[in-house]
Amino acid sequence: MDDRIVEHAKILVDWSTEIKEGDKVIIRAHPSAMDLVHALYKEIGAKKATPLTLMSTNELSRTYMLEHGEDFDTPEHLLALVKESDVFISIRGDDNLSSMADVPGDIVSSHARANQPLMKLLMDKRVSLTQFPTASQAQFAGMSLEGYKDFVWNAILRDWQEVHDQQEMLRERLSKTDEVCIEGKDTELYLSVKGMNPVNSDGKHNLPSGEVYVAPIPESTEGTVYFDMPVVQSGREIHDVRLEFEGGEVVDHSASSHEDLLTTLLNTDDGSRRLGELGIGTNRDIDRFTRNMLFDEKMGDTVHLALGYAVPKSVGESLKGNESAIHVDIIKDMKDGRLLFDGEAVLENGRFFWE
Amino acid sequence: MDDRIVEHAKILVDWSTEIKEGDKVIIRAHPSAMDLVHALYKEIGAKKATPLTLMSTNELSRTYMLEHGEDFDTPEHLLALVKESDVFISIRGDDNLSSMADVPGDIVSSHARANQPLMKLLMDKRVSLTQFPTASQAQFAGMSLEGYKDFVWNAILRDWQEVHDQQEMLRERLSKTDEVCIEGKDTELYLSVKGMNPVNSDGKHNLPSGEVYVAPIPESTEGTVYFDMPVVQSGREIHDVRLEFEGGEVVDHSASSHEDLLTTLLNTDDGSRRLGELGIGTNRDIDRFTRNMLFDEKMGDTVHLALGYAVPKSVGESLKGNESAIHVDIIKDMKDGRLLFDGEAVLENGRFFWE
Repeated sequence: MDDRIVEHAKILVDWSTEIKEGDKVIIRAHPSAMDLVHALYKEIGAKKATPLTLMSTNELSRTYMLEHGEDFDTPEHLLALVKESDVFISIRGDDNLSSMADVPGDIVSSHARANQPLMKLLMDKRVSLTQFPTASQAQFAGMSLEGYKDFVWNAILRDWQEVHDQQEMLRERLSKTDEVCIEGKDTELYLSVKGMNPVNSDGKHNLPSGEVYVAPIPESTEGTVYFDMPVVQSGREIHDVRLEFEGGEVVDHSASSHEDLLTTLLNTDDGSRRLGELGIGTNRDIDRFTRNMLFDEKMGDTVHLALGYAVPKSVGESLKGNESAIHVDIIKDMKDGRLLFDGEAVLENGRFFWE
Repeated sequence: MDDRIVEHAKILVDWSTEIKEGDKVIIRAHPSAMDLVHALYKEIGAKKATPLTLMSTNELSRTYMLEHGEDFDTPEHLLALVKESDVFISIRGDDNLSSMADVPGDIVSSHARANQPLMKLLMDKRVSLTQFPTASQAQFAGMSLEGYKDFVWNAILRDWQEVHDQQEMLRERLSKTDEVCIEGKDTELYLSVKGMNPVNSDGKHNLPSGEVYVAPIPESTEGTVYFDMPVVQSGREIHDVRLEFEGGEVVDHSASSHEDLLTTLLNTDDGSRRLGELGIGTNRDIDRFTRNMLFDEKMGDTVHLALGYAVPKSVGESLKGNESAIHVDIIKDMKDGRLLFDGEAVLENGRFFWE
């Protein structure tokens, strides 16, 4: 087995989910990720914790959903399992990223709604989402499998304590900030994060990570922003997204491809025209866009904004974050831009203030 | 996909576990059996029930057990999952039947003890154990994979209602029987089943099935019995087992190979020298010994006796079945023997009384 798989498992167990004796652990994986599951069983065994693995594949979901149709039941047996567990490790690594291509959107939404209680339950658990490098994901990224393995494990096998400490400087500074400004090509955007709660994302809930994020005050966003990187939704890419905000809401938008899909996303519900997240990527081992948000949003020298839902822990106490059924991250390259906290540059020409 | 996999799934869903709308279903499978899992998801979706799949492989268990050592915790999260479920379908189909070869027996036992509560819980559920034909199991049977597929699906894809009705004649007659006698080569064995509860095993809990079984009165067995077919235990074969019973207990025993292993089994505990089961196989599509008890014990024209534990539902009300940590089935060919209920032959020279 590739040594890097063993290291990957050790980080998941020791750092990300801090598994200890007596913990009840759930792993969710596609059989393609079997080597990582195997390495995890070894580490979990050494901790004297108790694992079980849910086999999850897009093809199974697709066939089940199509045959069932709408009005899915909430999987109460799965909820009971999660309730009784301490740790949930979800491994991405499907062998076909297009498996859901022929499932109508309303069926997917109906299934997601029925599974909503699971998401709520997981908020109280030690949860980590990670990636196993598969041929399908390499293909989707336009890379060779061996090249993609290097990319994935370079991004994952890091000293996460060091990452944590560096990002802590950014998080602390952001926590004392009222107004954030993003400047760059066709971009001048202001938003308030006053009283909000910035989060240091340091390889625990996402592996890889390398990001500090915060919920903006939903009504505060003003100005215009242009995004260099595409939004990938259901296999379609929306390019050159431009948004104009007034009073926190998108009042104008455009894109050079699939603009209609962007319009549909913005019209989802009351909250889908407002921001739920400002994120700042710090992981310079993620050196390219691979059409995989778990990686893309953590790229060094990028910021991203999410339309829709605000992650509750990034919302300040006694404040309200944005609510919506969607959470769509859109990434902006900052190599030629500036990120300012209350008028002071914290990221400029590809350097953070501590660099 | 092989049409027989679709039929296999339909039997499991419609006949074996009678899945209906709203049922919460657990499948346990090795990825080698993915095609059957996929076919099951389709059938379960059509019933508007809710499946999830536990990924179970011997290699994962082996590595976990070795790393953990003894004193396993009971998997409380798995128990919570099973408690909340209605149906449990377990699919055999590992890719390596020797995976546990380097795990010491005491570790396996310790793990089995920790999982004992799971077995109890499953007694209240609609449970079915079946086989997916894999190359590893074909190899273990000494067969080609294509030949083994024919064998497995011939045994499984039957009219189980018809099997049920035929076996019901045998079950009814056995339920009115006091003394059973097995006659054959080097064999004259008597045991009492008076007041016990014979069970018609008709493709529900085991698929394939084709057997009527009952718990003997633990103290009743008298005489000698010779078994033509080997006992396979942890990859070792005990051949030519001979047992002599007095007052229900084995008082003498021999075997032509691995006699020491037989001795160890007999010395496991107080109940391991008494019988927990008499079974009568009726499935003539199982026409050979394949070193797989799920099939072997259902062979047409065989009987089997189990040392140890009696399945509770085969024990008569207000009576006690045998108790033990083991349940070791041993099979006897009856083509040249006779099976008598209260002195009347019900199976003689390869024909049942209704044939």
